[in-house]
Amino acid sequence: MPGEAGVPVLTLAEVAQLVGGRLEGDGNTPVRGIGPVDEVRGEDQVAFLATKRYARFVPDSTAGAYLVASALESYVPEGIPCVVVDDAYPALREVLAHFHPDRAWTPEVHSTAVIGKGVSLGEGIRIGPYAVIEPGAVIGDCTRIGAHCVVGCDSEIGRDCLFYPHVVVYHDCSVGDRVILHSGVRVGSDGFGFTFVDGEHRKMPQVGRCIVEDDVEIGANSTLDRGSLGDTVIGKGSKLDNLVHMAHNVRVGALSLFAALVGVAGSVRIGQGVWMGGQVGVSNHLEIGDGARLAIATKLMRDVPAGETMSGHPARPHREQMKKQAHLGRMPKLIKRVERLESAVSELSDDAQP
Amino acid sequence: MPGEAGVPVLTLAEVAQLVGGRLEGDGNTPVRGIGPVDEVRGEDQVAFLATKRYARFVPDSTAGAYLVASALESYVPEGIPCVVVDDAYPALREVLAHFHPDRAWTPEVHSTAVIGKGVSLGEGIRIGPYAVIEPGAVIGDCTRIGAHCVVGCDSEIGRDCLFYPHVVVYHDCSVGDRVILHSGVRVGSDGFGFTFVDGEHRKMPQVGRCIVEDDVEIGANSTLDRGSLGDTVIGKGSKLDNLVHMAHNVRVGALSLFAALVGVAGSVRIGQGVWMGGQVGVSNHLEIGDGARLAIATKLMRDVPAGETMSGHPARPHREQMKKQAHLGRMPKLIKRVERLESAVSELSDDAQP
Amino acid sequence: MPGEAGVPVLTLAEVAQLVGGRLEGDGNTPVRGIGPVDEVRGEDQVAFLATKRYARFVPDSTAGAYLVASALESYVPEGIPCVVVDDAYPALREVLAHFHPDRAWTPEVHSTAVIGKGVSLGEGIRIGPYAVIEPGAVIGDCTRIGAHCVVGCDSEIGRDCLFYPHVVVYHDCSVGDRVILHSGVRVGSDGFGFTFVDGEHRKMPQVGRCIVEDDVEIGANSTLDRGSLGDTVIGKGSKLDNLVHMAHNVRVGALSLFAALVGVAGSVRIGQGVWMGGQVGVSNHLEIGDGARLAIATKLMRDVPAGETMSGHPARPHREQMKKQAHLGRMPKLIKRVERLESAVSELSDDAQP
Repeated sequence: MPGEAGVPVLTLAEVAQLVGGRLEGDGNTPVRGIGPVDEVRGEDQVAFLATKRYARFVPDSTAGAYLVASALESYVPEGIPCVVVDDAYPALREVLAHFHPDRAWTPEVHSTAVIGKGVSLGEGIRIGPYAVIEPGAVIGDCTRIGAHCVVGCDSEIGRDCLFYPHVVVYHDCSVGDRVILHSGVRVGSDGFGFTFVDGEHRKMPQVGRCIVEDDVEIGANSTLDRGSLGDTVIGKGSKLDNLVHMAHNVRVGALSLFAALVGVAGSVRIGQGVWMGGQVGVSNHLEIGDGARLAIATKLMRDVPAGETMSGHPARPHREQMKKQAHLGRMPKLIKRVERLESAVSELSDDAQP
Repeated sequence: MPGEAGVPVLTLAEVAQLVGGRLEGDGNTPVRGIGPVDEVRGEDQVAFLATKRYARFVPDSTAGAYLVASALESYVPEGIPCVVVDDAYPALREVLAHFHPDRAWTPEVHSTAVIGKGVSLGEGIRIGPYAVIEPGAVIGDCTRIGAHCVVGCDSEIGRDCLFYPHVVVYHDCSVGDRVILHSGVRVGSDGFGFTFVDGEHRKMPQVGRCIVEDDVEIGANSTLDRGSLGDTVIGKGSKLDNLVHMAHNVRVGALSLFAALVGVAGSVRIGQGVWMGGQVGVSNHLEIGDGARLAIATKLMRDVPAGETMSGHPARPHREQMKKQAHLGRMPKLIKRVERLESAVSELSDDAQP
Repeated sequence: MPGEAGVPVLTLAEVAQLVGGRLEGDGNTPVRGIGPVDEVRGEDQVAFLATKRYARFVPDSTAGAYLVASALESYVPEGIPCVVVDDAYPALREVLAHFHPDRAWTPEVHSTAVIGKGVSLGEGIRIGPYAVIEPGAVIGDCTRIGAHCVVGCDSEIGRDCLFYPHVVVYHDCSVGDRVILHSGVRVGSDGFGFTFVDGEHRKMPQVGRCIVEDDVEIGANSTLDRGSLGDTVIGKGSKLDNLVHMAHNVRVGALSLFAALVGVAGSVRIGQGVWMGGQVGVSNHLEIGDGARLAIATKLMRDVPAGETMSGHPARPHREQMKKQAHLGRMPKLIKRVERLESAVSELSDDAQP
């Protein structure tokens, strides 16, 4: 596995200390890596066990130790040492960061990069081969721009950003600090705005910006349109998965999460800490309150109050949706009950005839 | 906001004249820009009000004037001048075009562009850094090809087109005049065609073309497959949003609209003026008549006659779908009614016993 | 149509021999091409007829001959010669391969390609303009890498692969032999993994690989995340259409098919020979057995046994789903039946009053 070469071995006691966990068994067990319980192989590897669903793989594991969520401690085989933690994923994050430190990189503006007039380049930056930084753009300190990326005229990119190859930021956009954009991300493309005049769809000028705030990460091939009037905004610390579409003038609050293939139509306002599962679709002009959750593939056509969980197509509050599905499941029995009633009533009517 | 520098101020009377609207109040009010009612700030700005949903933002607005749809005129605060129009979006388009004229550009074939043998370049064109025009391709007059674009062998691009950076047109494709392709658009990729022979999926050669007619606009990261046999065709003046998929041999008539994340499977024939909302999916070989509308996330498995509006999953005519949802909502009451009937009938039966 | 120039004419008898079909009528009929029955024009063209749906176009066809599935032989007009085959698509494939041979290409590493330190290039390869092969990468014999592609550090690409322009393979990934990647494919982007600590979504290091096995083809703008812990694997001979998303740690068996806009969430295990229609969505951690089929737009939230066909949202076995829809269709009648019962019972009760 990548990243392991040259990384010093830990003892299991050191792993426990690193993650603030409770050590069970031999603290001198050497640890050279960590992996999922169903894939990790070898006595110097720690198996990671955080969900019950994966407990079934424990019997076949050859791992020499476990990093285990406290609720699952009983699944660790007798005699195998382990580190027990309340919250498994933050702990995993610490161990991974140890065994897989970030690749080293050195500042460099590649000789083939095309840097336009009036571009402002920060210190300690890296710009890859064939990147194009158009006139007037600003790149902050310590930011890395991958091969073939294009930063459009007058756009501003913050510091400590990481753009993988093939990112395009259109003109007049703004990207904050510590933003990660994966390959194929498009920031600031025109919104889908037309008006039908004289027998044709005439383009509405899309004159707003797209603003990506600090600490945002956006997955591969996702697209963020610029505002038509006013701006499109992705709030601080929000994360978008691959192939997500954010239409013009969408406003996303801080710390929201969007799984892959989500599509949000124009002018939707999304609060803080909102979660959307994969393939969720949201109609235009809606408002979604803080902390709302939309289950996978929810198709939303109305506003959502803060804290509500929605699901289904068309979307309803999740409890109501579950009831609807349950009712649908009762239909066959209901039909039979009505048939029986009809027989009974018909019999009663016959009896009632004089 | 971009584009405003150096643009001459208008008076509100001039705005009224520009859009053919009715002036109410002081025609001498100076106007330096226009914005949505919930975002625009400043006395020299016109607030745009076209939908009732945004009227609630009026009380907090500091705009000096309004451009307002006639149906909403009553929402404009007393004493604030305004321009009233019947159709707000075409009027907005005119005002935006004034305040945000297109960026100036000059013809240039960048020194790093790779131009293949036998390529025909029109007059007044612009080809960006690192673009690759493969042998035999044709580029029409005044067309702009962005950085890193690839135009494949023997493909023909019309005049006055605008390709943003990172567009790929495969070989033997045809793109008409005044076509706008956003970043990441792929035109003419292979269709999904395989035939299972001797235990493997063997690739069907995809030998047709992809034809994009005049005045089409295609959003970021959308993909249009070439025909397998015969061609894929996007009709004149049709518009596609981001992340749309058109499979091999799809034929789209003129002036149709496709919102983001729409997927149309192979050989579907779509008429003129068809509308599809975001995330609509269409099964292969279907026919969709002129003027049909498919609501957001409609999943279509059967033909649609001209003018019909469909919705839901599976798709049904929208009225029928609404009724279905209403019926489902009546299930709890229906179950109670059946329970009451059962009690009543049971009682009657008891009474009827001799 | 492309590819026809210089290709020798066949007689219809030769076509029959090529595909192992039965000749009906004049074997000397010259054949210069093949096309779909609704598009092909000209007496030297063979019309292809494989599905009943297209039989309606036969009367208007000017084709000089037919390649027809045996079940549809009766639709061929009297007096028109034809070649009859049991399985039409493999036969079509043979004919297409004759009339549209692959474009010739010559090995070449373009002078503008950036080849990093320690890169291993096989024999007979082609690397297009502005491609970037990062340090430590391996490219197998006879592989073609299109313009602007990026192959990340230490990634290994097999032999006889075809990467269209604008493919990005991240670092430490593995692509097998004879793999076709269309424009905009991203292999090995980071999975969507965060853990909420101290009020922010902290990134989980994504340290696994993405492994694409032999004979896989992946459509335009599809994205395959690398594993978080452990690897993402696309099995031998599987095919993905455009805009497909495979999340981290998804494992796909051999020979599976995924239509456009499919999204598979993290850690899903998919068997061999599985089919998913367009826009299918799969929740994380599920298992899908060999040979399972998911109809277009199925939204799956539970495991699927081998061989099962699922459909709908939420997904159910297809038969059950059909019944549900049928039940829903019976609601209006059922409501009327309950109304009639209520009247009858009310009457009976009145009669029963003393």
